[in-house]
Formats: sequence, C-alpha cells, structure tokens
Amino acid sequence: MEDNPASHPAPVVSGRGRRRGIGLDELRLTGGFWERLQRTNADATLRHCLEWMERLGWIANFDRVREGATGGERPGWPFSDSEVYKLAEALAWRHGTTGDAWANKTLEALTERIGAAQDADGYLNTCFGHAGQRPRYSDLSEGHELYCTGHLLQAAVARVRTSGEDELVEIARRAADHVCREFGPEGREGICGHAEIEVGLAEFGRALGEERYTEQARLFIERRGHGTLAPIALLDASYFQDDEPVRRAEVWRGHAVRALYLAAGAVDVAVDTADAELLEAVERQWHRTVERRTYLTGGMGSRHQDEGFGEDWELPPDRAYCETCAGIASVMVSWRLYLATGEARYADLIERTFYNIVAASPGPDGRTFFYANPLHQRTAAADVKPDQVNPRAEGGVRAPWFDVSCCPTNLARTLASWQAYAASVEDETVSLLQYAPGQMRARTASGVLGLRIATEYPRDGAVRIEVTEAPEGPVELRLRVPDWAEGATLADAAGSRVVEPGWAQVRGDLAPGTTIALDLSVEPRLTWPDERIDAVRGCVAVERGPLVLCVETADLPAGWAIEDVRIDPAAPPRTDRDGAIARISAASAPRRPAGRPPFGPTPPPDRDSPEWSEVPLVPYHRWARRGGTGMRVFLPTA
Amino acid sequence: MEDNPASHPAPVVSGRGRRRGIGLDELRLTGGFWERLQRTNADATLRHCLEWMERLGWIANFDRVREGATGGERPGWPFSDSEVYKLAEALAWRHGTTGDAWANKTLEALTERIGAAQDADGYLNTCFGHAGQRPRYSDLSEGHELYCTGHLLQAAVARVRTSGEDELVEIARRAADHVCREFGPEGREGICGHAEIEVGLAEFGRALGEERYTEQARLFIERRGHGTLAPIALLDASYFQDDEPVRRAEVWRGHAVRALYLAAGAVDVAVDTADAELLEAVERQWHRTVERRTYLTGGMGSRHQDEGFGEDWELPPDRAYCETCAGIASVMVSWRLYLATGEARYADLIERTFYNIVAASPGPDGRTFFYANPLHQRTAAADVKPDQVNPRAEGGVRAPWFDVSCCPTNLARTLASWQAYAASVEDETVSLLQYAPGQMRARTASGVLGLRIATEYPRDGAVRIEVTEAPEGPVELRLRVPDWAEGATLADAAGSRVVEPGWAQVRGDLAPGTTIALDLSVEPRLTWPDERIDAVRGCVAVERGPLVLCVETADLPAGWAIEDVRIDPAAPPRTDRDGAIARISAASAPRRPAGRPPFGPTPPPDRDSPEWSEVPLVPYHRWARRGGTGMRVFLPTA
Repeated sequence: MEDNPASHPAPVVSGRGRRRGIGLDELRLTGGFWERLQRTNADATLRHCLEWMERLGWIANFDRVREGATGGERPGWPFSDSEVYKLAEALAWRHGTTGDAWANKTLEALTERIGAAQDADGYLNTCFGHAGQRPRYSDLSEGHELYCTGHLLQAAVARVRTSGEDELVEIARRAADHVCREFGPEGREGICGHAEIEVGLAEFGRALGEERYTEQARLFIERRGHGTLAPIALLDASYFQDDEPVRRAEVWRGHAVRALYLAAGAVDVAVDTADAELLEAVERQWHRTVERRTYLTGGMGSRHQDEGFGEDWELPPDRAYCETCAGIASVMVSWRLYLATGEARYADLIERTFYNIVAASPGPDGRTFFYANPLHQRTAAADVKPDQVNPRAEGGVRAPWFDVSCCPTNLARTLASWQAYAASVEDETVSLLQYAPGQMRARTASGVLGLRIATEYPRDGAVRIEVTEAPEGPVELRLRVPDWAEGATLADAAGSRVVEPGWAQVRGDLAPGTTIALDLSVEPRLTWPDERIDAVRGCVAVERGPLVLCVETADLPAGWAIEDVRIDPAAPPRTDRDGAIARISAASAPRRPAGRPPFGPTPPPDRDSPEWSEVPLVPYHRWARRGGTGMRVFLPTA
Repeated sequence: MEDNPASHPAPVVSGRGRRRGIGLDELRLTGGFWERLQRTNADATLRHCLEWMERLGWIANFDRVREGATGGERPGWPFSDSEVYKLAEALAWRHGTTGDAWANKTLEALTERIGAAQDADGYLNTCFGHAGQRPRYSDLSEGHELYCTGHLLQAAVARVRTSGEDELVEIARRAADHVCREFGPEGREGICGHAEIEVGLAEFGRALGEERYTEQARLFIERRGHGTLAPIALLDASYFQDDEPVRRAEVWRGHAVRALYLAAGAVDVAVDTADAELLEAVERQWHRTVERRTYLTGGMGSRHQDEGFGEDWELPPDRAYCETCAGIASVMVSWRLYLATGEARYADLIERTFYNIVAASPGPDGRTFFYANPLHQRTAAADVKPDQVNPRAEGGVRAPWFDVSCCPTNLARTLASWQAYAASVEDETVSLLQYAPGQMRARTASGVLGLRIATEYPRDGAVRIEVTEAPEGPVELRLRVPDWAEGATLADAAGSRVVEPGWAQVRGDLAPGTTIALDLSVEPRLTWPDERIDAVRGCVAVERGPLVLCVETADLPAGWAIEDVRIDPAAPPRTDRDGAIARISAASAPRRPAGRPPFGPTPPPDRDSPEWSEVPLVPYHRWARRGGTGMRVFLPTA
C-alpha cells in the first residue's frame, strides 16, 4: 500500500523521512472554510491570473523568444516568467486533485508556449540571453533567472506527481540539467539573488529520483552567505541572505520571502543528505524568528523598505509588511520542518498563517488580493479599480493586480493544494493537523484508514470524526490540539478527557463506525503581547480559535474614531458569529491645543466617564471587505 | 542704516517683508555650543567633504564635461553635482563670515572647474546632455537636473551676499536664464522630481533683484500637484508632492526633503508676490504636520521606504528616518514662516531641530555624520571604517560618507550660516530667537543696537545681555521665551517678573550699560506623548531645556538590557552636567517560554520588587559618541 514517493501527489515528499504529508488523492474536502476558498480559486483566481498575464504580455514574452522578437521593451519585471510558472503549478494541482479539464487544457497550452521559448541547451528565460537582451546570468543579484527556473521546477513537480511525466516535466528536466552544467562543481560558482532554485531543484530531484539535482541544491545552499553577490544600491548582503552561511545563521533576516524560500530548500537538502547540523540550523532560526520576529497573524517581514524582517521585537502593527508570499513561504518552511521533526508547533504556525495571512489575501470574488497585511490601518485606503495595476503593495485595500504581482499566483498554487497540509502519515500512524470537513482515505503501512470528518471549524470548535474504513493491521490516530486550545476535550472509546495542546492520541479500536469527538473552545479570548514588543505596549488583541479578530471603523458607533478606541480588558468579549463582541470606548480624551507638537509636560489625561459600547470584532481575514476602512488588531486597554 | 536687501549677508532676505534675519556680519559668536560646532565645521567638515568628493570623482565630473570625456561610467548618483554646490555655499558663508582665505581660494578653484563645464547656453549638469549621456531633461522624475541647478543658485546667493558678484554668480545667472528660457511660460511645462529649483530661483531673484526668477519659481510651484511627473516604480505621485497643488494641500506628505524644500520655495514666492492664500496654505501644512507628523526631536520623515512622512500619528521611534537633511529643510521652512509672520512657534521648532537633529549629525571630529536620526536603537550598530562609503542610511553609527551623501554638505552650509537664525530685525525692533554667547551689532531703522550676550545655554538657562551700543532713535528688544520654558523670569530696568512662553518685551531704556537677565529653567522634565501616537504608548521622555535626552546601554548597570529599561515617573530626574539622572529599572520580567510566539493569554507579569538604579541620561545629540550602542529616548514607565 505504500506510495511511490516520487509520484505521491503532494508538494513535498522527503526522500528519506518516514513521515509524509497526506496525498491530495487521500483527502477530499466536502465543504467548509477551505473548500470555499479552493472553489473560488478554481472558478475565479486561476482565470483571473491567466487573463492579467495575457493582457500585460507576460505570457506573450515566451512567444517573443520563440519568434526571435526579443528586441525593444519587454513587458513586466525580469521575474515575470515565475508568475506564469506559479500559475502552471496551480493548474497542475487543480487538475490533479479534481480532474478539471479546463485546467488541464490551459496548462497544456501554456506548456507549449513555455517550451517553444526554451533554448537548445535547456536555458529558459524571456528576459536574458536573446537578441537585444542582456547576456545570461549577467546580473545574478537582480536578474532572477535561477529564481524563475526554480518556479518552473516546482510546477513540474506538481505535474509529475499528479499526471506523470509530460512535456512540462521534460522542459523542466532540460532546464535543471542546464543549471547543473552551468552552476555545477565544474561550472561557475554563482548563486541567485532570490533563493528559490534550491527548493525547486531539491523537490524536482525527489520527484524524478535524480540525486544530481539535490546535490546542485546543496551547492547553492552552501555557496550562499559568503558575500559573493554584487551589492544592490542602498541594500546590504543580508537582503539576500548572503551575509552569513545558512548553517551558521541564528535568525532569519533580510528580504522575508528570500529568507524563507532559502530555508525551505535548506530543510529539503538537510533531510535528503542526512545533514543534522543544517536541519538544526533552520530549526534554530525558526525558533528565534517565531519568538521575536513574527506577528500574531503569523505574518513575517516587518519592513516595507526591503520587504524584510526587522530586528528582534520590531513588530509595528501599522507598517507591518507581512507579505502574503512571505506567509506562504513560511508555511513551506514550517511544513518541511514538521515532516522532518513531527513537532506540533510547526503545524500551529501553519494554522495561524493559513487563517490570518493566506485566507486574508483574496477578496470574496477571488479577483482582488492583499499583498501586504498590516495589523493596523489608520486611514481608509482609496478603492482600486478592477482594471488598475496597483503600483504599491501598501495594503489597506485588495487590488486586482500589482506592478510586482507575485502574490496572486502564489496564493493560487497554495490554495489549490491546501489539503496536502491537513494531515500526515508515518508508518501506521495518521496525524490530523488542520480541521476541515472531508473524507479521508489515508494509506498507512497497515492499509487504508478511512475517516469522515465533520466540523464547522473555525467558527465552531467541535470536530466529529467517524472511522469509515480500517486496515487489517494495527493503526493509530492522533489529533493536533492547537497551542491556543487550553481545556480541549477528546471523547473516544476510552471515554472523555481533557487534552493538552500538542498531540492527543486516540485510544481504543479504530473499527469502522467508531466515532471520535474533539472539542476545542473557540470562545473569544484576550491575547497579550510580550512587553518587549514596543509597538503594541499597553494593548491587547482578541482571538477566537485560530482567528485573529480586529475592529473596523464601520462597526464603531457614529462619530467614533479608530485612533481613540480603547477596550475594557475586564469585560470578557463574547461570541458573535465567527467574531466577537467587545466592550469598547472611543470617547476622545481632552486634547492638547491644536497646532502644537504632540508632546507635553503632563501625562495623557484620564477620560472622564468614558462612554462604552458593545462593538463587533470581525475575523482579520475578512477586513476591508466592505471597502477601505480604519482597522486595528491590537487595542489599547482603557 | 538700512541694508540693501539684495546684499544683506543672510540666506533668506524677503523681497517684501519688513522683518529680516540678522546678518552674518551683525552677530559674532564668541563661544558656546554653536561656535564650537562652527569651528569644527570650518576646520574639518569643509575639508572632509572636499576630500571625499575629489576621491570619488564627483568634482572631476565637471572636468570630464570640459574635456569632452563624458562617455562611460560616471561616478556618483545623478544628483552628485548638488553636493559640490552645497560645499560651495558653505565655503561662501564661511569666507563671508570670517574672511577665511582657504575657503575663498577653494571656492574660487571650485568655481573655475564648475564654470568650465557649463554649456554655451547656460545649461550646467555633469550627468545629462553630453556625449554618451542621456538627453537634457529626459528624466524629470529622477534626473535631478533642476534640483542641482537650485543648489547652484543657493551657492551663488551666499556668494553675492557676502562677496558681491563674481564668476560663480555669473555662472548661476547663465544657468537661471537657461532655466527660464527652457521652462518659462513659452517653454516646456515640466517640473523637477525633487523640489529645490523653486527656493533657489526665488532667493537668487531676490539677491539680484531679478523678478523673472521669482516668476519662474512661481510657475514651478503652480505646476506641481497635477500628476505630470512620470511615476517612479513602486512610488506614487505624493512621493514628489505631485499629487495635490501646494495651495490646496493640508499636510506635508511623501519624501520629506522634497516636501520641505518645496514649502520653503512656496513661502518665498508667496511673500514676494503677496499671495496670502499660498502663504496660508504652507502655514496650515506646517501646523498639521507639527501637530501630528513630527518627532520630539523636531525630526521629520517617519519612513525609510520612501524617506517620507508617514500618516498622522505614525511616529515610530525605532524606524524614525528623521533624515538630517529633512531637519535642515524644516529649519528653512520655519525660518521663512517666521520672517513672514513673526510667530515665535516657528523659532521654537527651529531650536528643537537645531539641538536634536542638526547638532546630532556630526561626530566630534566633524568627519562622521548621522544621516538618519532614530529615537530608539535596539542593537548596537557596527563601526564604520574611516574610508568606508556607507551603503545605507540606517543610523546607529556615524559614517564618514554615504552612497547618497546629501547630509554632510547640507550640514556644512547650515552650520556655516547658523547665526543668521539667531535674531531678527523689524524696523526699530530687535528680536533674539536663539541664545548663544556673542557680540551683536544689529542695524535697526533707528541705528545700531549693540548687545553683548553671555550664556552657557543650553547647559544653563541663564542669559545675560548687556547693551553695548544704542541708536539715537527709539529701539525695542524682545526675547523669545521657548515653548518649554514655563516659569521663566526676566529682569530688566522695570524689575524682575515671570514671563510666559512666546515673546518677552524688554522694558525701560536701552542705554549702553543696561543689563538684562533672562532665566530659563533647564531642570530635567518629563515629556509625555499624545495618546494617539501608538508607537510610544506607555512611555515618557526626559528633556532638559531644548535638549532631548536619551539612555544608552553603556550607562546601564552591567547585565541590564536596553529592552528592559523602565523609568519611575514618580521620581523626578535631576540635573547631571548637561544631562540628567533618572530612576531606572531594568530587571527583566519573568519571560514567556523560549521558542514560543511572543503573545499569550496573560498580561505581562508584574516585576517582583524590581531593582532600581540611578542612571545617567545624555543629550540625544551626543548619542553613539562612544561607538555603536543601544539607545532610547522614550522610556516605558514602570
């Protein structure tokens, strides 16, 4: 019953680990939060990305190479090819999961256009190396050629694991072989300014059983951190993690997406080469970064300037960059660390990031997106027109497309493969990690364990599981109890009991018909920041299950301003649909004189008998659905 | 006795206003805080700037134009010419104030090299318009050509007002005439992405009595705000204030130096064309910006990303950009508004900015500089080597030169003309604005008023003034009482009395030998932020006279961390030299578990019997003099 690891339909299949993620063919979502997002992704986002990239000429860039028409202005940034590849990956997962014929046909058509642009030696890039373009690999710091190739390889991984080897896989193989020749031990000692080739090569090597690719990924990992990349104006080497070797670094720094893609590749290499030191280095970086450089939403990247991590405790809610792509990249790293270690904390962060970064990005129609995900918006952002390319990634309102438009396609490929992160299998043990209604047929070492899962999670914390099919041999089931779920209860054949955050082992026989009830309290709760986070001193947030909540201007009584909001922490918020109701005051304090500096010799005056109101807090992932608005997650306490 | 306004030796001489700043020849500093800085500026900084610009080839760029050798790589950014002009301006003020022969000789040599690069039609720029370069004015958004010309005109203003018309003035006249032809009513309707030509033209027009230049400045002002500049990637039109006309805007926004240079030019134009609406617009913007977008130090510009203003109340201390040049530009605007209105509040902000931004930039040797001026440093910055061009403007340690090196030369020209901002004359009234020991001979409408001023300000708040010379006719003297100086006393012929912040009018006869004593309390005091400034909630700062104070890691007891510092606001800080001693605790609170997210279900625990220590706070302008260090201005209260 064991999979062939190479063809196991999942984004990550470690070459040596015994633990594997559930295959996309082993879990069918039957409704709920993520199935809705997947449906919108399939019905709208995939088409939306295709339309925009046709309109802007990013796909036609491949045709221009084929036609030898590369002189003159080229649409898009140098890395626009990668967006086409991420869409290809999304289409492959979509078709592979559901048999969606449109997705397959569209992917085949894209594949043909991509392949026609490939040079005879396997090089494939529409921005470099052809008539009127700069030479190949002439700008490793900013050219993004290897980055693009990495995304091509990830698309091919999705294809080979869901449909087998086809032309896309052949294109990718030629491209990977070219990279190995060009940058191998005998080739040039370069690395790409934007990590991604590492994780692409490693996984493609796993998918094809081609160890040369893993070895090339290892070379790229080891080469980084020695300051060999030419500097980019006003940025230093930490921007692309070229300041310190991966195995020596203590924390993630610089451009967040680069740091996280690099870390994901490093875990792949560490696992497949049994490099315990390298694995430990990434674990150490994860711990330090989560402890000091990660937002309540799971968001990473505190700075707009370089789309980068800040220093320890630098977590401003208003200027939080928290790029959607960094959230996705963080899931990629945490997932690999989970598979490598089996520690529940990695799945805890994945859940937090899924609900509060990934789910926050798309609008309900799947045709607008958040790029940055701040936790505090002072001024309502202006609307973006449906045909408008957004020059900035400031956040505040979802936009249909961006000048640098990495997030929509990244979201598309992630949503299309969401269930891959919901469970794992290790020998005869099945672990449920994320809760969603569905039908599972998990292939264990003993045979198939079938489960029907019913839940309205995250609105409700009740998870009901029925065994629908059991193998002949021994089988185990364990459930992740999220880190926030104090006082959870599990009812199984052994009775009902309180289970601690971490793992809850299901006891008793798992015969068909057996039912298991996990109950997680999703009552609204107050969450306090570490006092070293200067930017939210004196504030508290409200969460509900895995959902971070926020207050929006639209929900305040008329005339109240978001900047004056205070919460009464002594009055526990109560449940309101999937959000909460909290006791809020926003009567402004006596002001200092107008036109004077906002500093003075007396402490802020107490508010005389403030007026209180019961104000709804909504899930952060839904903010700004009613248009541009003021918003805050962390509320000053009264 | 009245000046000829055109040749009055001061940076700003309004064409129509009755109030004028004291001339550089009317006030001789005889010691004290600013005289020391001026001396270091003359002895070290001027030479330092010259050496660096020779070494980097920024001055040789002029020679290359003369030699017709402009093909190939050109050293420096497109705006590097402006640094040479700012140095020229500094040399002109220096020579004009003290007769410094080296400064004069150096300026003459520079002038020759600059002039040799001027095209026959007056165009002068080393980056555009010659063989192998892009065409003139082909990139108004980023090319900085008019910006550079503006700085040339300001240098010429310094020259004509201190030494009369010379070759530099002739070069500038040809350049200004070229600009008027090229961009005049009949010319192209362009503006420069970086404002500066406006203020340069307006002042040069005043200096030469040439109204065409003022008219051209007016045209540039009116043209801005209509979205005509081509966008710069990832930035919107507010970056260069092209989003809204100057006379309609409510607040400063976008790139801070651009916004402030533009505002300075707008005041000049408003005054000289009697445009009350335009003047009122800039006053309104000043008020709103000072009320909501200005740091305690007077620093402006909250964001690194675009070197720009943030939104209202967005004043993070750690990522405060507060560029030194923005501080200088803010002085330029406030000074013009003071001359136009006579309101003391403008001089209040000038003082705050002088002591806490301008004075903070140079190191004691005058050869290293702060570019950004954050109010909170978590991690000690690494030292910068004396020959190292700093790629970033992050702050944390003073650097000898920067990739974009606008601040050192801007500082040089400002320090060289500092006393121009210390007093003003209006008809027969002399107003003292900034306190420094010196000998004044102010030319009033009635004749010369001579004053000897003795003070150890800002270390001490006692200012002693003796009348050394009095005119025949009536004369008035008034003294600015700073906005922070509650309870100040003035002793004059009419006796001793408490004077309120604003203006204190000296009473009685001002016969030679008359003495006047102003006493300002410079006892350390607590300063509380407006509660709408989220980033410093729960914190208080300590000030002493015009000086903002800060705590540095080096002054904490061994083992205490800057991130754990708490101040006891109930224990008033006491004087310690020019700083203070405060009651500080830094015993760390019980920590949450390591490796977990920094958020949890309980409020930060109370510290059990914290350990207190008497810790020195030093003037912010001296921070990091002992090398890279942790530092904070706003201290969380215990």
